Amino acid sequence: MSDTTPPQLPAGFRAAGVAAHIKKNGQPDVALIVSATGCSAAAVFTANRVKAAPVLYDQELLATGNGHLRAVVINSGCANACTGPSGLQDCLDTASHTAGALSDSTGQRINPAQVAVMSTGVIGVNLPMGRLRAGITDAVESLSADGLERAARAIMTTDTVPKIAYARLSAPAGTVQIAGIAKGSGMIHPNLATMLSVVMTDAAVDSDTLKTMLKDAAGLSFNRISVDGDTSTNDTLLALANGASRVVVDSGELRGQFQRALTQVCIDLARQMARDGEGATKLITLEITGAPDVHTAEVVGRTIAKSPLVKTAFYGEDANWGRIIAAAGYSGEDVEPGCMSLWFGPVLVFQNGMPTQYSEEDATRAIQTHDVTVRLDLGLGSATATIWTCDLSHDYVTINGRYRT
Amino acid sequence: MSDTTPPQLPAGFRAAGVAAHIKKNGQPDVALIVSATGCSAAAVFTANRVKAAPVLYDQELLATGNGHLRAVVINSGCANACTGPSGLQDCLDTASHTAGALSDSTGQRINPAQVAVMSTGVIGVNLPMGRLRAGITDAVESLSADGLERAARAIMTTDTVPKIAYARLSAPAGTVQIAGIAKGSGMIHPNLATMLSVVMTDAAVDSDTLKTMLKDAAGLSFNRISVDGDTSTNDTLLALANGASRVVVDSGELRGQFQRALTQVCIDLARQMARDGEGATKLITLEITGAPDVHTAEVVGRTIAKSPLVKTAFYGEDANWGRIIAAAGYSGEDVEPGCMSLWFGPVLVFQNGMPTQYSEEDATRAIQTHDVTVRLDLGLGSATATIWTCDLSHDYVTINGRYRT
Repeated sequence: MSDTTPPQLPAGFRAAGVAAHIKKNGQPDVALIVSATGCSAAAVFTANRVKAAPVLYDQELLATGNGHLRAVVINSGCANACTGPSGLQDCLDTASHTAGALSDSTGQRINPAQVAVMSTGVIGVNLPMGRLRAGITDAVESLSADGLERAARAIMTTDTVPKIAYARLSAPAGTVQIAGIAKGSGMIHPNLATMLSVVMTDAAVDSDTLKTMLKDAAGLSFNRISVDGDTSTNDTLLALANGASRVVVDSGELRGQFQRALTQVCIDLARQMARDGEGATKLITLEITGAPDVHTAEVVGRTIAKSPLVKTAFYGEDANWGRIIAAAGYSGEDVEPGCMSLWFGPVLVFQNGMPTQYSEEDATRAIQTHDVTVRLDLGLGSATATIWTCDLSHDYVTINGRYRT
Repeated sequence: MSDTTPPQLPAGFRAAGVAAHIKKNGQPDVALIVSATGCSAAAVFTANRVKAAPVLYDQELLATGNGHLRAVVINSGCANACTGPSGLQDCLDTASHTAGALSDSTGQRINPAQVAVMSTGVIGVNLPMGRLRAGITDAVESLSADGLERAARAIMTTDTVPKIAYARLSAPAGTVQIAGIAKGSGMIHPNLATMLSVVMTDAAVDSDTLKTMLKDAAGLSFNRISVDGDTSTNDTLLALANGASRVVVDSGELRGQFQRALTQVCIDLARQMARDGEGATKLITLEITGAPDVHTAEVVGRTIAKSPLVKTAFYGEDANWGRIIAAAGYSGEDVEPGCMSLWFGPVLVFQNGMPTQYSEEDATRAIQTHDVTVRLDLGLGSATATIWTCDLSHDYVTINGRYRT
C-alpha cells in the first residue's frame, strides 16, 4: 500500500511552519496548511467535557460550514483552553486574519469560514494574538509544496520528533496520495487525548464518506494508544480531501483500498506518538487475543496500557508479568485467570492461571528492546485488538513536573 | 473520639512480628494477631477478577465459618497470587501450622478454620513454606499485648513507615478500644487495591453488624484513596471483634459512636497510606463540592486523583490547575466548565470557566507544602466527597522499575 516514496504533500496542498515566539524556546510554533481548492472536511474531536475554544470553534465550523475548507492554522505553545468567551473571539480573529492574508496572497476570495484553527500547549492562558497574527503572515509568505515537515515540526510540544505518515494508491483513474502529520506525546489516551493531527488527501471524497472513513480509521489507531491515560481538552483529528487527483473515492473496491490506506496512515502516526510518549524508552505493542468480542479486547488492552505499575516495570526491564495479569483482572471485564496465557515476545510466561517453567533470562531478554510485543490471550473467544503504549520513566516525571516553566 | 492514649491492642489481643527471610532484605515479614477468645469477623476484599489464593481462601472461610476467628497470620514478601491450586494448598498449610502452634502454646484447641491468612508482595511466586512455618513458630512464641507496632512493621512492603490507628470510646458499660494496622503504598486505588489492613476491637459486635459497619467505613476511607490507579489481587480489610470489653454494640447511640470511631480509624489508616504512597512527597486532599450527588463527586475526585499529569505537576510544585479542570472534564460525569470553581489552598484560581486574576506566587505557595488541599466546586448541587492521593515522583518510577530485584 505505502511504498518507498518519501512523504510529501498530496497534489494541491501547500504548507508552512514558522516561529512566532508563542513558545518560550523560540522553536517553530505556527503551522499553516492550505489547499488550492475547497476541501471536503471531516473531523474527530476530544470526548472531554471541557473543550478548548478551537475545538468548540471547529465543531461549529464543520457542523454549519459548506464543507469546503481551504486552510487550517495550528499554533503550539498555548492551548487556548479554559479561556472563556475571549478564547472563542481569538479563534475567530485567527481565522479572519488567516483568510485575509491568504486572500491577499492568492488573489482568491477566501472566507474566514473556510479556515479551521487548532491549538495545543498550556491550558488557561489566552493566545498572544499579536505574535500569532505576525506568525500567520510569515507562514502565508513561506507556504510551499515541500512544507510538510516544517508544518509537522511547528505543531510539536513535548514531542522529540516530528510525526509524518504517507501512503499512495494507484487507481485506474490515477494516483491518490494521503499524507498526515500529528503531534502528541503526553496526555494521550483513547478518545484522542492531547493530540492534533491533520490528514490530507488529493482524492475526491465527499464529506459524509470522509467522516465515516475517518471515524473507522481513528478507532483502530489514535483511539488505541495510551501514554498516560489523560484525555486532553484540545484533541482534534482533521481530514481534508481536495480532489486534486481527480480520482473519486465513493464506493466499491477503491473505497476499501482507500480506507485501508487511510487507516494505515493513522496507525503509523499513532504508533509514532506512542513511541515518542513523554520520556518513553520503549514502544509497547499489546496484542489482546482470544477475547469474546473486540470491545472486551480493547478494554483489557487499555487497562494494561494505562497501568503505571506495568509501565514502570517495562522501563526497568523487569519481566514482572504479574502486574499485567492483575491489570487485566481489574479491567472490569469478565476475564478468567485460569484461561489466560501471556507471552513476552516469544516467551510464554503464564498459562492456565499459573506461571510456566520459563527462563527468567529469556523473558528479560524479550523486553530488553525498544520495540516490545506482549500478547495476552484471554482464552474466551476469537476477537482481538492491538493497543500501543510506552513505558513510564523518570523523564516523564521530569517533563511533567515542570511543563509550564 | 480518639484521645492522646498511645495506640495499643484492644483487650484480649496479642500480636507479633518476626523476620522469616521471605523478604530478601531480612526485614520482618510475618505478622500474627491472636485473640484470647473467638472473634466476630467481617472483611472487604479486592474487586480484582484475579484474586490471590489467600483472598479466595479467606472469602470461603468467612462465608462458611462459624464467625469465631482466633487468629490472622500475614506474610509480606510474597503475594501468593497467580499460583494456582498449590497456592490454595499453601494457605491451608499456613492456617493448619498456625492453629497447631497456637494450640500447643495456649493449651486451647484452635482449629485451622479459626485462622485467616493474608499475603502481600511479588505476584506469581509460591510461598516458601519452610521459612513461613518457622516464622509462624517464632511469632507464636513472641506474641505480646504490646506487639501492635511489630505486627504493623512485619506487613510492610514498599511502605516507609508502619501504619497504625487507634480510637477509644467511653460507654456506660465500659471502655471500647479500636486499633488498626495497614500496609500499602503502591498499587493503591479505590476498590481497595494493594492494601492489607486488620482492625481489632474489644467491643462485642455480631458479625452481620460488623460487616455493615466495616463496609460503610471502607467506603469513606480506603475506597477514597488513590496512589497509582492499580487495583491489586490481594487487598483485604479484616475486622475482628472479640467482645473482651463486655460492651455490646448493636443499636442506638452507641452504634453511631462506634461507627464514627471505626470510620475514623479507617480514614486515619487510609490517609497514612496515601501520604506514604510510593515515592510520594505530598499528601493531596481533594475536596469535591457542589456535586449533584456523592457518586459524581467521588468519580470526579478519583479521576483527578489518578491523573499522572496532575500528580507530576504537584511533585514539581507547578500550580498547573488546567490539568485538574481537564481531568474533571474527562471523568465521564456531566460537569460544566462554566460552573466550576477551583482553589489551591485558599487561592481561588478558576471561576466560571475562566482563570481568576490570582497571583501565581500565591498559588505556588499554596502547594509548596507536604499537605496540599485542593477544592473543586462543580457548581451543580450540594453533594461532596473527599479523596486523598499523593504526587508522582521520580522515586515512584525507581521503586516500581525494579521492584522484584
